[in-house]
Amino acid sequence: MAEHLVEFDSEAKPVTVQTGTLLTEAARQAGIDLSQPCGGQGRCGRCAVKVIGGHVRQRSTLRLSPDDIAQGYALACQAVVEGNVAVHIPPQDTLDRHLTTDRTVAAVTIPAGYDPAKNQPLQRVTLQLTPPSLDDQTDDWSRLQTAIRQETGITDLQVSLPLLSKIGAVLREGEWQVTAVLDSLGNCPSCPARIIDLLPGHAPLDAPLWGAAIDIGTTTVTVWLVDLLSGQVQQQVAEYNRQIRRGEDVISRIIYAGKNNGYVEMRELVLATINDLLHRACQRAKADRYDILRTTITGNSIMMHLLLGIPAGSIRTSPFVTAVNQIPILSAREVGLEIHPEATVDCLPGIASYVGADISAGVLSSGMDDTEKISLFMDIGTNGETVLGSQDWLVTCACSAGPAFEGAGVQHGMRATRGAIEEVWINGDTYEPTYRVIGDGPPRGFCGSGLISILAEMFLTGILDKGGNLNTTIPTNRIRQGAHGWEYVVAWAGGENNGLSATKDIAITHVDVDNLIRAKAAIYAGFTVLADAVGLPLEAVEQVLIGGAFGKYINVEKAVEIGLLPDMPWENFHFLGNTSVLGAYHALLDQKLRDRIKDIASRMTYIELSADNSFFEAFTSALFLPHTDLDRFPSVGKALTVS
Amino acid sequence: MAEHLVEFDSEAKPVTVQTGTLLTEAARQAGIDLSQPCGGQGRCGRCAVKVIGGHVRQRSTLRLSPDDIAQGYALACQAVVEGNVAVHIPPQDTLDRHLTTDRTVAAVTIPAGYDPAKNQPLQRVTLQLTPPSLDDQTDDWSRLQTAIRQETGITDLQVSLPLLSKIGAVLREGEWQVTAVLDSLGNCPSCPARIIDLLPGHAPLDAPLWGAAIDIGTTTVTVWLVDLLSGQVQQQVAEYNRQIRRGEDVISRIIYAGKNNGYVEMRELVLATINDLLHRACQRAKADRYDILRTTITGNSIMMHLLLGIPAGSIRTSPFVTAVNQIPILSAREVGLEIHPEATVDCLPGIASYVGADISAGVLSSGMDDTEKISLFMDIGTNGETVLGSQDWLVTCACSAGPAFEGAGVQHGMRATRGAIEEVWINGDTYEPTYRVIGDGPPRGFCGSGLISILAEMFLTGILDKGGNLNTTIPTNRIRQGAHGWEYVVAWAGGENNGLSATKDIAITHVDVDNLIRAKAAIYAGFTVLADAVGLPLEAVEQVLIGGAFGKYINVEKAVEIGLLPDMPWENFHFLGNTSVLGAYHALLDQKLRDRIKDIASRMTYIELSADNSFFEAFTSALFLPHTDLDRFPSVGKALTVS
Repeated sequence: MAEHLVEFDSEAKPVTVQTGTLLTEAARQAGIDLSQPCGGQGRCGRCAVKVIGGHVRQRSTLRLSPDDIAQGYALACQAVVEGNVAVHIPPQDTLDRHLTTDRTVAAVTIPAGYDPAKNQPLQRVTLQLTPPSLDDQTDDWSRLQTAIRQETGITDLQVSLPLLSKIGAVLREGEWQVTAVLDSLGNCPSCPARIIDLLPGHAPLDAPLWGAAIDIGTTTVTVWLVDLLSGQVQQQVAEYNRQIRRGEDVISRIIYAGKNNGYVEMRELVLATINDLLHRACQRAKADRYDILRTTITGNSIMMHLLLGIPAGSIRTSPFVTAVNQIPILSAREVGLEIHPEATVDCLPGIASYVGADISAGVLSSGMDDTEKISLFMDIGTNGETVLGSQDWLVTCACSAGPAFEGAGVQHGMRATRGAIEEVWINGDTYEPTYRVIGDGPPRGFCGSGLISILAEMFLTGILDKGGNLNTTIPTNRIRQGAHGWEYVVAWAGGENNGLSATKDIAITHVDVDNLIRAKAAIYAGFTVLADAVGLPLEAVEQVLIGGAFGKYINVEKAVEIGLLPDMPWENFHFLGNTSVLGAYHALLDQKLRDRIKDIASRMTYIELSADNSFFEAFTSALFLPHTDLDRFPSVGKALTVS
Repeated sequence: MAEHLVEFDSEAKPVTVQTGTLLTEAARQAGIDLSQPCGGQGRCGRCAVKVIGGHVRQRSTLRLSPDDIAQGYALACQAVVEGNVAVHIPPQDTLDRHLTTDRTVAAVTIPAGYDPAKNQPLQRVTLQLTPPSLDDQTDDWSRLQTAIRQETGITDLQVSLPLLSKIGAVLREGEWQVTAVLDSLGNCPSCPARIIDLLPGHAPLDAPLWGAAIDIGTTTVTVWLVDLLSGQVQQQVAEYNRQIRRGEDVISRIIYAGKNNGYVEMRELVLATINDLLHRACQRAKADRYDILRTTITGNSIMMHLLLGIPAGSIRTSPFVTAVNQIPILSAREVGLEIHPEATVDCLPGIASYVGADISAGVLSSGMDDTEKISLFMDIGTNGETVLGSQDWLVTCACSAGPAFEGAGVQHGMRATRGAIEEVWINGDTYEPTYRVIGDGPPRGFCGSGLISILAEMFLTGILDKGGNLNTTIPTNRIRQGAHGWEYVVAWAGGENNGLSATKDIAITHVDVDNLIRAKAAIYAGFTVLADAVGLPLEAVEQVLIGGAFGKYINVEKAVEIGLLPDMPWENFHFLGNTSVLGAYHALLDQKLRDRIKDIASRMTYIELSADNSFFEAFTSALFLPHTDLDRFPSVGKALTVS
């Protein structure tokens, strides 16, 4: 096969590739990390590069304007090398690696009456062994087991080969005085306890015993470093999931993972994220990473599969089946966590399809499984997982809202970091907007809450009609024809905010509006279908519990105005923050709560929306602002009448 | 630290090493494999090299004659580099890699009534799963577990992460028709069954199901490839343990392993030996190595520790304690066997100190634990393990005979391969010997049976007195002063055997005689102490069962004449061949027999001879030919009277 030279205008060396190679792959070989938030499907436009010499075959030019194409831009993930070519790589979006701490630190209450000896399964025992003699030539491992049995009553103990290999040296180094760390839970319900570590000498009683609760979000990975003796969360750290560059939503990631050696890369990316976070948390707490001896992990089904290198392709296509919901207990060595290699890794159980351990754990933290009140629990995110129920029953669905509210699939969408417009107000007379920006600098785009806000304001001021159409007759230069059709400009390039200027016009386009309405319609349709499935009117819902870091910043009034949340008294809404990591924390501290998560996962009924005609109907009815049926939104009707 | 250049007269490149480096290490860095049968202790003399330029500091010159030293020879393992040096490497002993097959193939009887479905724990089940649908979105792993439960009744199943990762693909490739291989025994007594493999489609009922019984001898590694469906041993292969170059006996190997990164090297060497044997056996049987799904492994304690990379140093020094006698069930992946990575590896249990799984398995094959007859079971080898007992009781000891009878520590000793003198006859009048050589070529040295034979003949003809002293007054040029003192020459350099000439004089020296007498005295003292310990006279022993490939070729008459074996009717001696691999084979085929080995190991009383004054007395009394007390050897007394 013919080979071609691909040159870059950066410091990267040229590479030689075969005919048919994609420019993303050529860039990867040259060490250039091109952002591919859609997983290389040619749908997000973020990997656009400029061909400055030679020619590429373009499979798709979606997301490129005629102007872009005229200038020589091509989507690298869709550009096939068929001859020598020279490429200009525009500056890549770089992630703000460190999320602002004040946005992620949660106030956590240690469970009442927490007793490390009773609630959680790790125990550290100090042992004084009788040294061997010519009268007692018992082997080291049997001798140790006997001492542990005498101290703890544990009669059967599992050990890994690497730990077995070091026992003899530790016993002698400690002069037969040692400290053992045991996990009383084995690898399976009937398995014996496991010895996790053996150290020479007697550890002081108050020596720290560390655990970690880990939540792998599609967007953000959160790690809580927990002192298992006091139950206290000592550090909370969070960072973007490094898989984002290979797909912003789960579907894009499955697609990327299925190509080339994508599963290996995806696994490495999430492990690098988690390991860095563990490292940072330990540095701050002055702890040794290798003293972390137990972890619980949550995440949606795809995140869990990708963490373990388990193919997730079957989740994406009908009948949307996971490879595994209940993952066996593993060790840090097997998983690839850079903590104590024997540390127990407990991946919490998922439910079905997209609905994973983050929801099982989230339901636990929400407490909805333990109250008579009929509750609606929702995680407003890509998968739009929703749970309806009470202590007696639980039903769930995932409504594939897509990542619009997370800023993806929206022209000027971004995550909730510095520069994101998080709230907008539009003057009903002048149609001039004012806005608030995270970090108070110049605006760079809209985050989720900003998108909800702008949509609501545009609707209430009549810029949008209930069908989501822009009223182009309004006399303002902010409504204009842009590269992608009609749009409303919120911030002008050069326009000042606190003395700093935006570098580009920041607008919301009619395509963005369509995407946002589709996303909110999917979420709303999800819980109406759940209510229908159990024969309850939505009004029967006594409380709405909203999980996810994103949910925390939603303005309820505006979310109701666009028909994302149901119209009910504001006091019925409760924003719970990251319920997933909170559930992982509870599972880490208390085995009874861990068992409750398993119970939640097994008794929850999953409703597959794609198999349900009523979902499509509900979705279609919700494709309006706030809804076809305004009777469902009396407070919005009232607001419209007033304005 | 100063660096020096070490040059070799071979094709190897010069290397630069620091002051204090040993020549063996410098040679290793240059890629030269110097034989170190004593483990680098400077005791065997096999690593002698000639310093042809510069100078080395010699820690020890033991085993070098004054002549050798004058010529510039030095022991590489004792030669410290302190300046630039040039070294001549003499040709190294190369092992005859392939043992002659006719010497190792045993006739094996399949246990009567063998039924693979009942006796051994592997089972292969063909499954027809209901495909998932929108009405049944159960995850793949739960779906598979349900199908297995319906087919086998197994309700709980363990799975490794790598196997879990491939389940989804296999289920779909087989279109929900698959074959699972299960090991009904888990990793511990209370552990659930384990899934070992999953294959698409339905395997034919007669598709082979392979197992391997592996015996890791200090000298020879033996692998039997077993068809688990029929119970038949399909292939028997054996090869020298590649660790030999790093120590001929277990003590030398522990010493070598304790230096530098010796445990890693030792593990790699024995794994390379086993993996090559598995490969060869599979090639001959036209089997795929990755279809071997279960193995049992035996060996003495040190061999088992070295296989698993477990430090064995504590076995060598008082109180002679092993790190582990009962090794947990492992997988081939963990151990490093190149068979199916999930294959069960069952390392059989050892007893105490040097007495390992080879003896537990050997006792099973000998049947002595299942008869009323008082039996003496012995493995004549380096460790001289001996067991005395019956169905009611078992006592054992290891008497550290040393490797003299295996050809090590003897000037012209060698293993029982081509060129080894295996039997000698000396004319009582002329003192001229005749001999038989393995392979009928020119003699190269003595193997164990040859050494027993020459010792007996020299004693009976009066060349040796009962104290082991050479009678230097006998008028023959075969008794002479050699480089190491007095010796008796068996074969002359240039002397012909079947038309082929020996390249050197082959003699037995007074040092060799001393070593051999000490070895036989240790073995004899071992079983007299065992008998004393249980208060039985040796005459009470009703049968002597001799295991080990070496034992098979012993001439009983001559072994009794030198006092190695007790004087009793020849029909009481039974040569059983490799009882260790036979026991491993039985444990592989029948879980009841596997349990019996565990039972043997746990009920056997180990007697530590070094803690026993009576051993030293018995040993001292046995340092004569055949013994101080000739009444113990009436048949020898009679032979001496006749001659």
